[in-house]
Amino acid sequence: MMKLEMKSALKTYKEKTKKSAKLFAESKKLHVNGVHHNIRFFKPYPFITKASKGKFLVDVDSNKYVDYWMGHWSLILGHTEKNIKQQAIEQIKKGWMHGTANQNAILLSEKITKAVPMAEKIRYVSTGTEATMYAVRLARAITGRKTIAKIDGGWHGYTTDLLKTVNWPFNQSESEGLTDEKHIISLPLNDLEKSLSMLQSVKKDLAGIVIEPVLGGGGAIPATKNYLQSLDEFSKKNNSLFMLDEIVTGFRFRYGCLYETMNLKPDIVTLGKIVGGGFPIGVICGSEEIMQHANTSTHSKANRTYIGGGTFSANPLSMIAGYSNLMTMKKKGKSLYNKINGFGNDTRKMLSKIFNNDVIITGKGSLFMTHFPKQNITEITNAMQASKCDIEKLHDYHFKMIAKDGIFFLPGKLGAISDAHTNSDIKSMKKATETFVSDLKK
Amino acid sequence: MMKLEMKSALKTYKEKTKKSAKLFAESKKLHVNGVHHNIRFFKPYPFITKASKGKFLVDVDSNKYVDYWMGHWSLILGHTEKNIKQQAIEQIKKGWMHGTANQNAILLSEKITKAVPMAEKIRYVSTGTEATMYAVRLARAITGRKTIAKIDGGWHGYTTDLLKTVNWPFNQSESEGLTDEKHIISLPLNDLEKSLSMLQSVKKDLAGIVIEPVLGGGGAIPATKNYLQSLDEFSKKNNSLFMLDEIVTGFRFRYGCLYETMNLKPDIVTLGKIVGGGFPIGVICGSEEIMQHANTSTHSKANRTYIGGGTFSANPLSMIAGYSNLMTMKKKGKSLYNKINGFGNDTRKMLSKIFNNDVIITGKGSLFMTHFPKQNITEITNAMQASKCDIEKLHDYHFKMIAKDGIFFLPGKLGAISDAHTNSDIKSMKKATETFVSDLKK
Repeated sequence: MMKLEMKSALKTYKEKTKKSAKLFAESKKLHVNGVHHNIRFFKPYPFITKASKGKFLVDVDSNKYVDYWMGHWSLILGHTEKNIKQQAIEQIKKGWMHGTANQNAILLSEKITKAVPMAEKIRYVSTGTEATMYAVRLARAITGRKTIAKIDGGWHGYTTDLLKTVNWPFNQSESEGLTDEKHIISLPLNDLEKSLSMLQSVKKDLAGIVIEPVLGGGGAIPATKNYLQSLDEFSKKNNSLFMLDEIVTGFRFRYGCLYETMNLKPDIVTLGKIVGGGFPIGVICGSEEIMQHANTSTHSKANRTYIGGGTFSANPLSMIAGYSNLMTMKKKGKSLYNKINGFGNDTRKMLSKIFNNDVIITGKGSLFMTHFPKQNITEITNAMQASKCDIEKLHDYHFKMIAKDGIFFLPGKLGAISDAHTNSDIKSMKKATETFVSDLKK
Repeated sequence: MMKLEMKSALKTYKEKTKKSAKLFAESKKLHVNGVHHNIRFFKPYPFITKASKGKFLVDVDSNKYVDYWMGHWSLILGHTEKNIKQQAIEQIKKGWMHGTANQNAILLSEKITKAVPMAEKIRYVSTGTEATMYAVRLARAITGRKTIAKIDGGWHGYTTDLLKTVNWPFNQSESEGLTDEKHIISLPLNDLEKSLSMLQSVKKDLAGIVIEPVLGGGGAIPATKNYLQSLDEFSKKNNSLFMLDEIVTGFRFRYGCLYETMNLKPDIVTLGKIVGGGFPIGVICGSEEIMQHANTSTHSKANRTYIGGGTFSANPLSMIAGYSNLMTMKKKGKSLYNKINGFGNDTRKMLSKIFNNDVIITGKGSLFMTHFPKQNITEITNAMQASKCDIEKLHDYHFKMIAKDGIFFLPGKLGAISDAHTNSDIKSMKKATETFVSDLKK
C-alpha cells in the first residue's frame, strides 16, 4: 500500500524540517506562494537551504541532501567550487558593480569564442530569458518577418516573445495577459514530417526557429540529429534564422556546444547557466554579420536591433565566475566529461534495471529523467509523451528520496550529475530507488 | 576656441588610457561595439575599470575617477561598501546558487515591506527588465485588456512589452524586430491635458499606466505631484492598473518609495538597483489581491499570470547584499538622506550659478543632470525638451572632466551622489565646471 509509505515519508519530512516549516510560513506571508521561481515550490513546503557545498545542500535544520538539481543545472563542478569561490571573493573586494567596461568580460569571451567557434561576436545579458528575447528580436529584425517557430515543451525563459506551449496542455495559453502569441507556432519535437509541414505553411513570415538540442524543462529529451539538421536546412533555404538555445546544453556534454557534434550551423546560439558558474548570466552568440545589427555606433535608430543590456550586464563578478569555471573545466579536460557522462549512462541503465523497464529514462550525458508511462506511452521522443506520464508518481519518488534518503531532486524535474558526485552517490540513489520500487509493490 | 580644448582633452585621455585603448580594441573584436550595455560606450573608447572603491573608479592604467555614475545609480553608499562586502563574502562561502528557497529573501522582504507598505506581497526576479515585463503582464491579465500607457522618454528596461518612445525621435521605432508596439501608447510627461485626452481615447482597452516618478534615463525630470495623482485617479476610475516604476527612485530620496510622499496608491511598484546593493535584482511589489494572480498553487494554467522567475531569481547573494544595504542605510538614518539630498541641492545651485543660467539643471535629491538648451527651450519638464538640448556639448563637458579632472559621469547621463562623496568632491566638480565654462568662452 504505497499511500502508507508516502504518509510515512511526509511524516519524516515534517519531523526533520521544522525550522523550514516555520520559515516557509513566513515566506508565504511575504512572497507569492512563498517562492521566487514557481518550480521551487513542492508539497507540503520546500525546505529552506542555509548552505551548499560540493554535492550537498544543507537546510536550516541541518539536514544534508546530495543534490541533483545543482542550481538549475548551472553547477557542473558542484556547489561553491573552490576556484570560482576564491576568484569571486577576490572580485568582491575589487568591486562587484563597476557599471563600466571591465576586463573580465574579455577573459570570459576569449574562452567562449575558442570553444564555440560560431560565437564570432558575443553580448552578455543577465539572464537566459533576456538572451532568448534578444535572439528572437534579432531574427525578426534581420528577416523583416514576425513568426517564430518553437518546440512543444520548449523552454526559453519567461520572455513574452516565447511564452507559448511550455507546459501541458500545450493548446492552452501559458498565462493571461499575453498579447503576442499569434506570432509563435509550435512544433512537435522529432516529428519531422509534421514539423516541416507546419513550417511550410508559415514560411513566408518565418523569422526563425528556436530549439534546445536537448529539451530541458520539457523532459530531458534529445532532439535527433536528423531532426535538427532538417530544421537547420529548412531555415537556410527559407532565409530564416536557425537559433539553438544551448543554455542548458552548452558545456554540459563537452567543452563547447552540441551543435558542432551534429554538423549544425546555427545563426544564433544562446548560452547561460554553466558559462556563468552559477552567477547571473545570459549570452547571445552569433556571426559578425548577424550581431552587427545590434551595433549602435554603426546603426541608427531606424535600422538597428536594440540589444540594450542592463544594469547588471557583464558585471565583473559573473564574468570572472564564468571564466574561472571554464578555466577549471578546461584544466580537468576530458576526464571531467568522461566521468559525469559515464555516471549519467550508468544511472540511466541502473534506473531502467531497478524499475524493471516500467519506466522510461530519458536524457543525455550527465542529464537524466525518470518518466512513469501511462496511456500506452512506449517511448518518449517529445514533450507531449512526457506530459502524459504519471507526474504524481515522479513527485512521490523524488519526495520520498528527499524525506528518507537525503537525496534531492527538484520534485518532477530532471537530474544533473556534477563533478562533485562520486560512485557512492550513484549507489545511494540505487538503494533509495530500490526501496521506492519495493514500496510500490506493497 | 572650444574645439582646441576638446582636442587637448582627447589627447590627454588617449595618453593616460593606453592600456584601456588596447583592451577595448580587444573587446571590440569579441563584443558588439565592445560593450554589453549600449550606453557604456563613449568616444573615442571607454576606459576599462579594474577596481572600484568608495567614490572611486580605477581604470587599468591606474587612473582614478570620482564616480557619479555609481553603478547605474545602484550604489547609494558608494562602491564596495564594507558591510555589503563582508556579508557578500560570507555568502559566497556558504553558496551563491543554492537553486532552492533560502532565508535571505525573507530577510530582505521584511525590510522592504516595512519601508514600502503597499508591498504586501513581493516577487524577486533578476533584472529591472524582467520586473517591468511581469508588471505589464499582471496588468493585462487582471484587466483583460491590452493597451499600456507609458511616458515619452520613460525607461523600463529592454522588455519587448515596453520598448517604445525611449529614445529620441520618439515617433520612430526603438528597434527593428518588434511586433507588439501597437499595444503601447505614450504620453508627454507633465502635460496633463494632452495625457488625459490620450488616455480617454484608449480607455476601453487600457490595462494600465506605467510611469517613473522621476524620469531617469529620459533626463532626470520629476513628474509633478498633480500629474501623478491625476494619472493615478484616472487609472482607478477606469479600472486600469497604476504602476509606478521606482527602480531608480526607490530608496533614493528617502528610506522607502516616492509614492508615499505624494499620496499615490500604485497597484504595482517595481524596484531594483539600490535594493540589491549593486547585485542583480528586480522586484515586483503589490497587494495580496493583485499578486495572488501569479500563485501557481491556487491558480490553474487557465487563469493565472505567469511570473516564473528564473535560474537566478532571489539568489542568496543578491538577497543578502540588498538586505545588508538596507540595514546599513537604515542605521545611518536620516543623516544619509540629509547629506546626499543636500549635496544634490548644492550641486544643482552651484552648476546653475557657474553656467550663469545658460543651462537647465534638472533632478531631485541626489540625482542631477545638466542640460544645454537649444531651440528656445526655456524649461525642461518632459523628455521632448530634454532631447532638444545640446547633447554633444553635454558629452564634451563630461568627457573633459573624465580626461582632465578625474571626474566620471557616464557621458550624457545624469549624476548620482552617494554617501561616499564629500564636500571636497562638490568643490572639485565646481572647479572642473568652471574651467569648462571658461573654455567655452575661448
